[in-house]
Formats: sequence, C-alpha cells, structure tokens
Amino acid sequence: MIIIMEPGATLEEQQAVIARLEREGFKVHLSRGVERTIIGAIGDKTRLKSETLAALPGVEKVVPILQPYKLAGRDFHPEDTVVPVGDLTVGGRQVHIIAGPCAVESREQLLETAMAVREAGATMLRGGAYKPRSSPYSFQGLAAKGLEFLAEARELTGLPVVTEIMDPALVTAVAQVADVLQIGSRNMQNFALLQAVGRTQKPVLLKRGLSATIEEWLLAAEYILTEGNSQVILCERGIRTFETYTRNTLDLSAVPAVKHLSHLPVIVDPSHGTGRKFMVAPMARAALAAGADGLMIEVHPNPQEALSDGPQSLTPEQFARLVQEIRPIIAAGERELGHLVS
Amino acid sequence: MIIIMEPGATLEEQQAVIARLEREGFKVHLSRGVERTIIGAIGDKTRLKSETLAALPGVEKVVPILQPYKLAGRDFHPEDTVVPVGDLTVGGRQVHIIAGPCAVESREQLLETAMAVREAGATMLRGGAYKPRSSPYSFQGLAAKGLEFLAEARELTGLPVVTEIMDPALVTAVAQVADVLQIGSRNMQNFALLQAVGRTQKPVLLKRGLSATIEEWLLAAEYILTEGNSQVILCERGIRTFETYTRNTLDLSAVPAVKHLSHLPVIVDPSHGTGRKFMVAPMARAALAAGADGLMIEVHPNPQEALSDGPQSLTPEQFARLVQEIRPIIAAGERELGHLVS
Amino acid sequence: MIIIMEPGATLEEQQAVIARLEREGFKVHLSRGVERTIIGAIGDKTRLKSETLAALPGVEKVVPILQPYKLAGRDFHPEDTVVPVGDLTVGGRQVHIIAGPCAVESREQLLETAMAVREAGATMLRGGAYKPRSSPYSFQGLAAKGLEFLAEARELTGLPVVTEIMDPALVTAVAQVADVLQIGSRNMQNFALLQAVGRTQKPVLLKRGLSATIEEWLLAAEYILTEGNSQVILCERGIRTFETYTRNTLDLSAVPAVKHLSHLPVIVDPSHGTGRKFMVAPMARAALAAGADGLMIEVHPNPQEALSDGPQSLTPEQFARLVQEIRPIIAAGERELGHLVS
Amino acid sequence: MIIIMEPGATLEEQQAVIARLEREGFKVHLSRGVERTIIGAIGDKTRLKSETLAALPGVEKVVPILQPYKLAGRDFHPEDTVVPVGDLTVGGRQVHIIAGPCAVESREQLLETAMAVREAGATMLRGGAYKPRSSPYSFQGLAAKGLEFLAEARELTGLPVVTEIMDPALVTAVAQVADVLQIGSRNMQNFALLQAVGRTQKPVLLKRGLSATIEEWLLAAEYILTEGNSQVILCERGIRTFETYTRNTLDLSAVPAVKHLSHLPVIVDPSHGTGRKFMVAPMARAALAAGADGLMIEVHPNPQEALSDGPQSLTPEQFARLVQEIRPIIAAGERELGHLVS
Repeated sequence: MIIIMEPGATLEEQQAVIARLEREGFKVHLSRGVERTIIGAIGDKTRLKSETLAALPGVEKVVPILQPYKLAGRDFHPEDTVVPVGDLTVGGRQVHIIAGPCAVESREQLLETAMAVREAGATMLRGGAYKPRSSPYSFQGLAAKGLEFLAEARELTGLPVVTEIMDPALVTAVAQVADVLQIGSRNMQNFALLQAVGRTQKPVLLKRGLSATIEEWLLAAEYILTEGNSQVILCERGIRTFETYTRNTLDLSAVPAVKHLSHLPVIVDPSHGTGRKFMVAPMARAALAAGADGLMIEVHPNPQEALSDGPQSLTPEQFARLVQEIRPIIAAGERELGHLVS
Repeated sequence: MIIIMEPGATLEEQQAVIARLEREGFKVHLSRGVERTIIGAIGDKTRLKSETLAALPGVEKVVPILQPYKLAGRDFHPEDTVVPVGDLTVGGRQVHIIAGPCAVESREQLLETAMAVREAGATMLRGGAYKPRSSPYSFQGLAAKGLEFLAEARELTGLPVVTEIMDPALVTAVAQVADVLQIGSRNMQNFALLQAVGRTQKPVLLKRGLSATIEEWLLAAEYILTEGNSQVILCERGIRTFETYTRNTLDLSAVPAVKHLSHLPVIVDPSHGTGRKFMVAPMARAALAAGADGLMIEVHPNPQEALSDGPQSLTPEQFARLVQEIRPIIAAGERELGHLVS
Repeated sequence: MIIIMEPGATLEEQQAVIARLEREGFKVHLSRGVERTIIGAIGDKTRLKSETLAALPGVEKVVPILQPYKLAGRDFHPEDTVVPVGDLTVGGRQVHIIAGPCAVESREQLLETAMAVREAGATMLRGGAYKPRSSPYSFQGLAAKGLEFLAEARELTGLPVVTEIMDPALVTAVAQVADVLQIGSRNMQNFALLQAVGRTQKPVLLKRGLSATIEEWLLAAEYILTEGNSQVILCERGIRTFETYTRNTLDLSAVPAVKHLSHLPVIVDPSHGTGRKFMVAPMARAALAAGADGLMIEVHPNPQEALSDGPQSLTPEQFARLVQEIRPIIAAGERELGHLVS
Repeated sequence: MIIIMEPGATLEEQQAVIARLEREGFKVHLSRGVERTIIGAIGDKTRLKSETLAALPGVEKVVPILQPYKLAGRDFHPEDTVVPVGDLTVGGRQVHIIAGPCAVESREQLLETAMAVREAGATMLRGGAYKPRSSPYSFQGLAAKGLEFLAEARELTGLPVVTEIMDPALVTAVAQVADVLQIGSRNMQNFALLQAVGRTQKPVLLKRGLSATIEEWLLAAEYILTEGNSQVILCERGIRTFETYTRNTLDLSAVPAVKHLSHLPVIVDPSHGTGRKFMVAPMARAALAAGADGLMIEVHPNPQEALSDGPQSLTPEQFARLVQEIRPIIAAGERELGHLVS
C-alpha cells in the first residue's frame, strides 16, 4: 500500500501515519520528494483498510497494491477453473449454450422451447420461475409452479436447468430443482444472497451488475468463494452507459479482462446485453471470438406473446441459425461446441 | 401508448398490431404518413406491456405515454406526502438532519456520537448494524449487538433511529428497534426486500441505486407502496458516472425532478454522494437550496479510526459548523430546521 | 412527430399547439385519452424543430418519428456504401487493416513500422503527424515533417496513408498527403472541421466521440455528407463509462447497430478501445465476428520507447500473430482479408 | 511517480525500469515485498511520461503523484484568481449572472432580451452568433450579423458580451466584439482552438466537456494558460450520464472540487445542465450555495419561438424571479450580487 501525503502535510502528520502503519505490523519506506512525501507500506493489507489511512490528516491518496480478491484472482490460482454441471463442464475446451425463455410462462411454452433448443444445440436450459421486474405491475413469474415445470423439462430433455434466485429464504427450495443457481445483475451485491448460495454446493452463475466494475464483480464472486462454494461461473450481460439505442452496452472486453485477472469461467448473455433481436447473433459470434466459455440466449416459441423480454427473444428457428453461425467461430478458437453425453 | 411502425412494415403487420390492441380493449388511432405509419392506442396500459408490442413484426418503437408508477406519482396524488417519524414529520415545513456514524462500531462510539449530533442540531440518528460491503474481508457490522446499542442511544438522546436492512428475514427483528428502515442503494431493486418492508408499517428511507434512473427509483418506491406502506422517504446519494475524483456524482437535480414527478419527500446524503470530507458542507448547503427535505450526514468522533467511510465522515465539531452554515439556506427557502419536541 | 400533452394541459394549450403545427404545413391527428391528449403531426420535420414544440405551454414531451439523418441513414439509401481508397475498397467483401504507430516520431520509426505491417498483412498505414493530447506537456506530433515521412512511407510500401487532422486551416495541406483524413473522437462534433473535410473529395475516417450516441455519430457523418463528400468510414474506438480497468469501453454492439441504421462502412480500433496490449487481439477478433469492415491497430517497433500510447501498441511480431488469428474469423463471415493490388 | 511491478516480474525487468528512470534523472527507491515490487521515482515528471513506463515489460501500473496541470493548479498558485471583465471582476466577492438567449436570432430579440436581463440584475449578456448544433439541419446562428447585434446590445445596455467561438480562424474577428470568448463543451478538447484563444488577451469562459473529468478540464485550461492568457473562467454545464430525464446531469460537486484543486473562478450553467425550465431556478440556487462564482442562464422573450433551447429558456419574468430567489443564498455565503458600475 502506498500513501501519498498532501503537499502541505506536516512532519507530525507524516509521523502519525508511519506510527499507525508500524502499530499494525507494516514495514514502512519513506520517500521525501521536493513537493510530496510518499510512504510505502508492506504487510498484510487485510489488517488495515486503506480507507482508514485515507482519513488520517495530511493524507492525499492511498493506492492499494494487491488485488482485493484472493480466491477469485489468478495470482494464487493460476490454472483455469472448470465447473462441472451434471455431465458437462464449463470453462474447459467445450463451449456451452444456455438457452430458453426469459420467464417460465406455462408448461407447454417451457417444454416446447426446451425441446427446440436442445434440438438446435443448446446444452442447458434457462427459464425464470422468480422474475425481478422493475415494475410491481409486470409479470413476476410462476414461482414454485415454474420450478416444477423446469424439473419436468429437464426430465424430458436431459438439459441441466439454470434459474434465478432472488431471496435467501428460497435458496434451499430452488437448489432442489436447479442445476445452476443464477444471481441476477440487480442482486450482484445482495450479500445475504451471495452468502446463502455460497453455502450450497451448487454451481452459481453470477451476472455482472448493471454498473459494477470488474473489481466489484470479482469481489462479489469472492463472497461466494469464501463461503466454501468454488463453482462460480461469471456472466457478462451488459452495463449501463449513456447510450440508449441498445438496452445495455455489452462489454465484451470484460471477457479478456476476467480471463486475465481470474481463473473463473465467463460466459456472455447477448440477449440482455443488447435488448434487440437483430443484434443477438452478431454479438454472440463476437463474444465467442473474444474467448467466452459459453453463451446465454433467450428463446421463445412466440416472442410477440412473451410476458417479458419479447423484443430480444429469438424464435427457435432464429436460434438454430445462430448455432450454425457460431460453429466456425468456435472452431477458429480451437474449441468445440459442447454436447450432452446421452 | 404510441406504436411507430418500421418504414417497410407491411399492411399485414399493421393490421396484426391493431388486432392485438383491439383484442386487449384499446381504442386505436391510425396515422399513415408518407414514410411511417403510427398507431395510437388509448386504454389501460397495464393490460398489455409495451415490450410485448415491441416484439411484433414491423414495429420499430413503442412510446409509453403514462408514467408507470401510479401510487408514487403526482398525477393522482397532487399534494405532498408528509411522513411521521416519532414526533417529527419529514416532508413538511421542517428540514431534518439524520446524522451518525456509517457503522455502529461500539457502544461508546455510538453514544458519544449520538449525544454530539443531537447537541449540534440533528433530529435523527443513523448507524449501520448490518453493513453491505463490496469486499467480504471488510467490517460487516455488529448485527444484533448493534441494534441494541442503537436502542440505547435513542433512549439516551430521544433521537429516532434510522438503520439499514439487507435481508428480508431480518425485517421483523430490525423493525422492532428502528424508527426508519433504510434500504441501501445496492438493494434498491432487491424486490423481495422492498416487499418485506412494504408489509411493515414503519417509515422506509429508500436510497437511489448507484445507476438507477429516476423512473426506476420511483418504481422501487411503488413496490413498497403497493404492499400498503405509504411512508416512503427518498434519498439521493450519488450516482455512478465516469468521474473518479468523487466517490459518486451527487445528482442534485434529482431533488426538483422527484418533487415534480412524485409527492414523496426527498432528502440528500452528501457524505456518500461525494466521499470527501471537504465537499460535505458545500453539497449539504446546495441540497437544501435545491429544495431537499433533509440531509443524511456521516459523523464519527474519530474518523481516522472509523471501520468504514472514514474519509467522508465529519467530526462532531465539523458537523456543528455545517449545521450553522445551512441555517441561512433553510431560512432562504422559507423553511425551518427541525427540532425534537421534548 | 408526436406531441404528448401534460395531464393538466388546457384546451387553449392544445389548440395553440395544433395551430402552430398547421401554420407550418403539418397534417394533424388528435387523440384525446382520459388522462392525456396526444397530437400526431405528419409533414416535413425539418420545417419545425421538435424542441420548439417542446417549449410550448402544456407540452410534456415531443417524440420525433423520423431519423434525423437523411443522407447517412439506410431509409433512403438501402445498399451498402463502398468507399474507394486508392486501389482498395472499404465496405465491400474485403476486410482491411489499418496499422501503424500512434504518432509519427521519426523517419526510421515510421518506415520500419510501415514495412513491417505491410509484410504482416496491413493494407493501410496510420500515423499521427498532428496529435491531440490531453496535456499541453505531452508530445504533440512532428506536424509538417510528419506528413513528409508519411508520404515517403507510402512511396516505399504502397500503403495508403490515414492521418488525423485537427484544424480546419490545415485541411488543404494534410489532404495533399493523406489518402484518408481522420477525424479524432475529441473532434467528432467540431463542426467547422467536419464541414472543411466535407468540402474535400478525400475519404474521411470519422471516429466516434468518447460520449457520443450512435445518433450523434451519424449526425456528425451527416455534416460531412451534406457538404458533398460521400466517402465516410465510421470507426468505433470505445466510449467512456464508469469502468476504469480499460481505457475506454469498446462498444462492439455499435457495429451491428450502425450496419442496421446506416449504409456507411464501419471499422473498429481495439487499441484505443481497450488501452491494453493483451486485449487488442481478442477484441480485434470479436470486432470482425460482429461484422466490422476493418480494423485500426497501433503498432510500434519498440512500444516501451513510444512517445504516446505505448501500453496499447503491439510489436510487429504481435501484430503479425494477430493477423493470423483473425483469418479464420474473416473466413467464417464469408469475407476475405484485403490485399494490395500491386 | 510510483511503478508497481507485476507479481511475476523478473529481476531483469525491474532493473530495466530502474535503469530507464535513472537515465532520465530520477532518484529511485525500491521496495521489494513478498508479492510485489514497488519502485518510487522522484524527479521531474515532464521528462518521462508515465505511459512510457507503463509499456515496459513487467510493469503492472504506474501511479502519478503530482497533478499534471501546473498553471491551473493551486499547488503553486494558492490564492484565487480574479478575472476582470470590463469594469467587473469574476472570482472575487461579487457573484455575476450572465444571461441572454441561446442564439442571437434577430436584432429585436437580442436587444429586448438584453434590456430585460439587465433590468432584472444580469451583469453580462450571452448570445451565440455561431452555434454548434448536433444536426446540420438545425439553425446554425447569424454569424457576423450576430456579432454586430451583440455589439449594439452592449452599446445600449453596458453589458459585457460573452459569445462562443468554434473555429480558430474566427478568433480575431470574434475577439474584436466579445468581452469574453466562450469555448463550448463540444470543443473543450479542440486544442487548436484552445491555443488560439490562449494567444489573445481576452477572458475565456471554458465550459466543461460532456464527458470530461475534472482533471481533463483543468488540463484544457492549462492549454490556454500555457499560451500566456491567464484569464480563464471555468463553467460547469452538466455531464453525460445514464439518466435521461434531464438533458445532462449537472455536477455541482465540481464546484468545490475545482475550488480545491485550482485557483480559477468557476460558474454554473443550470439551463444546459438540466434542459428543463422548471429546474433552472432550484439548480441556480444550489450552484451558488455550493460556492459558484456566478451563473449563466438562458433567457428568451418568447421561448416557444426560440430557434434553439426553447425548453430550457426562461422568460424575462421567470428570470427576474430567479434573481430574487438567489439573493438570500448569495447573502448566506457572505457575498453580493454583482452590479454594473455605471
């Protein structure tokens, strides 16, 4: 940690900073320049928060050196993590596509979609039983009934099920059905929820928050990892910027960034990331070209009747075409499209 | 609701949109221009989501007309809401200052701060017993012990207590102690939590999310109001932008915006909004000049020992000076600084 | 254009709006709902600005229907524009790579880089003779001397030259040397400059502004097109967001968006878009997978001695590797890597 | 300057960094921690750009210590700068209001507005003769004719004239009429223009760019100051964020930030900053409460006929009311409303 003192900081103020650092067991280096004094501190950062030092009189800025996430970072875990989901593995050579409707709306809608996406090449099924909606007047999901249909769809197709969870109190119930627990972007910093899924042994799909930095996203993963659950899959799904033409701005540079900083697998959701049907396929191709480990795509048998996210949902036919379009991109990256074992 | 068709939309596509609207009970107006056809639909918007229409073939854009929040909006509730907190009222002629430490760290720290801020002019006490922290390694609060100290501080000073709640499962326990339940910005769209506090009859302080639009913020209030709790106080606390000099960008224009769109009271938190001690007083003055109904200020007896938010916490002396500085601003707005009845 | 009246708008206010519209030759449709009155206006939008109407009493919002860019939009120009640059064409089947140093620093540096990038597969040479720098103390470019070296590099390699222009007064001088005039992102709304390059018959590479919406970007192109120069190539180079890990956030969704809205070719600059060397190749691959017509890449023979943008510049070897990596992506899109005719 | 090496940086890489620093005359301090090596460098930063070091192999991050703006910063110029404009002074005890129409539209419109705003308490007149407009189809200003009318309005009222300049070629012509040269936000990094106004001896009003950090804004001021013109007045006018309810997000925290970092005066433009008439007065009050040295307000005798910015322009009556509302705020800050000497 480096402490930069203000130009007018007094000798007493410098000494107070040094005393404080030494009291906490840090080794201190002092550099007195003409205009600024700089204090370097070497030791265990977790003992003393940089913001505590920043509050000391005469301190201009504190620059942390070490990454604040230990378990999610590559520094102490250089090899890629591979997360098993049923018989599949995410983060290895195979690229997986999670597809399905935004919300589970009915048994028929779900089963029809599940069969169609499996047929086209998807290896996991998505579908929300509990839906976070900006407005209390929007469709909120079928809840327990939705979970039932998801279980039936898995039975029928063999596709592992990915579904969102919003309330810590429901973790046990949802974990009985879901193969992967999804944390939505609005809940990326719902720490009670992160800890609750961290105490299960289910893989967790952690979506990036709407305005979360990459560091905050990895710290959210750290909350799950510190509880003992190491099966975290990250999912980039667009960030909020000034641009209004797209629903969000899909930040594909997050893919190489996360691969560089962390060992966790990362997939991309171009449906939420763009909010527009015609952009889903080009951005899906781009995501894989950037190195993503998979995709999450919204598919609905009849998007114009969808109770949510119709404008960004593909029909099964459009989805099948997308799968064809990504094959050469996957091959170019020397990977292969995943497939169910059965 | 207005539906704008694409330039190349066919007659069949237009008719499909119209048929759909009429099926849902809308009255339809059609305007065929040289380049675009526009369809106006009058009726109850809640029956048909604009996104459903946006997914129909040939539709370019759907423009909603009515505000999506009915209970939080001024349209059907023109007069200002005044929220009672103990013997005080928020949103009326009096301006209130909520002050106290970011986190409850110890009995001594809390009681000392409570007495000091009361002495200086605060009329409510803030203090976190449960703390949302970006990193799992940061201080997470004293939990139940913290609530106990808050109750004792209220006993001692008469100050009503404002404290944050993060988990729906804790609402009952926290509501037994708190006078105002605070929803933090990270949880502004934690809908399970919003519904849980909506089912209490405690006033709720709803902080704006880091990247929430004003519409989303009022929709979050709507979640609480639809559950039957009408005592919502909004709190602007800075939004996330590209600027890194400040911790957040305090959006004071949210004050007149919210006053225009909604009848709910709105206060401002310049401590989180700026993250820098020297900016707290000028932005507190500015908030009141813009018409805010109150302030929320972090005060710590010894900011450089604070376990969180030290760089933005004022000492009791700095806080007392701030209160003096805002008095003429409050008078200029023909309001008065609130005071405890006792 | 659609005018939405406020809930409390009076009959007089409605009539004033209608009278104004009719006076300007618009055909008017009126829809009176229970809560809002909506006025549709059909006619030539350029006669009456929507903001003029928005200032009328009782008007809540004006929604424009037509895209504000006529020449840059696809509505009246459905087929793709192909821009000739020397013997090459941008926007057709071939994908082109513009490569070279951020700034021309010396004759040797430029010639060495030019030969290396040509050898590796680039078909145009970039290099700044006039450099826009945030600080007046940074290297500002070699100016006229830089142009001389660029001309010599073209002579030597056959590569057409792309170089930035910042001052309308220099357009004639720079256009004598450059094959493509580059407008940098800081000058995207420097309208005097846009008009000046619009009056030349040189192709213009128009970079997207740091915080420009896609609509503003296409309107900036419109400034060039209305002056009579139809040879505009758009270049996405990252937008400013809250994320600080990357220098900018490369918005690859701009590629399908621009292809949808406009007929102009669009290329991508992953060097500025990310600011980090290790991200350039993955984002270059992703850009082409998203459908970009080309790339712009910073290459320096010795990045650690570069006078600007060293951290994002590739060595010639890294660049050659990148060209190999993008070949299968280009093939997947049924296009081919461009090549010089000679 | 502090150089943080990557965890795996080799001894050779460390030595290369040190050698490079010493070669440039820096004094070097080395701290070898368990996980990271940190190199402190003391010396003249202008000799070696931090980005050059960031490009060296093994370097993770370079943290600059000194502010990059020397002339605009407070470090070497602690006392406030006061800029004389005719007989007035900006940045001293008096607070000034610049008022007038967005664009000069006609002789009558300008003279009428000038007399009205003078009567109400404005001490300078604004009005654009050259207008930067996003669309080439919008009104672009009366150009030279507009300057003539501005000169006449000054003659008539005694109000000094503030007007925007967009093209370096017009600096001489505009400077013959204007008392203050305005650089608009779109041109904040038009360096050719900054240098051109820096070579005049006219006060310059430098608006903050739409997405400019405070550091970039002060560096833009530095461009003017390094040319020898020390009369720079900064103007906050809103930044671009995700919020769409307001035209921009007025960042009032920029006022205390700039006052802290720089000695230059800073004023606020709540008209562009909000884009909505009803917000102008509250944000004007807030700006002054935050410590601004003045305001810039759009006033039009008939906003609904305005050729630009109608929705945010006040009528002369609304403006007169605003001046009354800010008087007690100014008094609260122990300053006074400026007035013409005559």
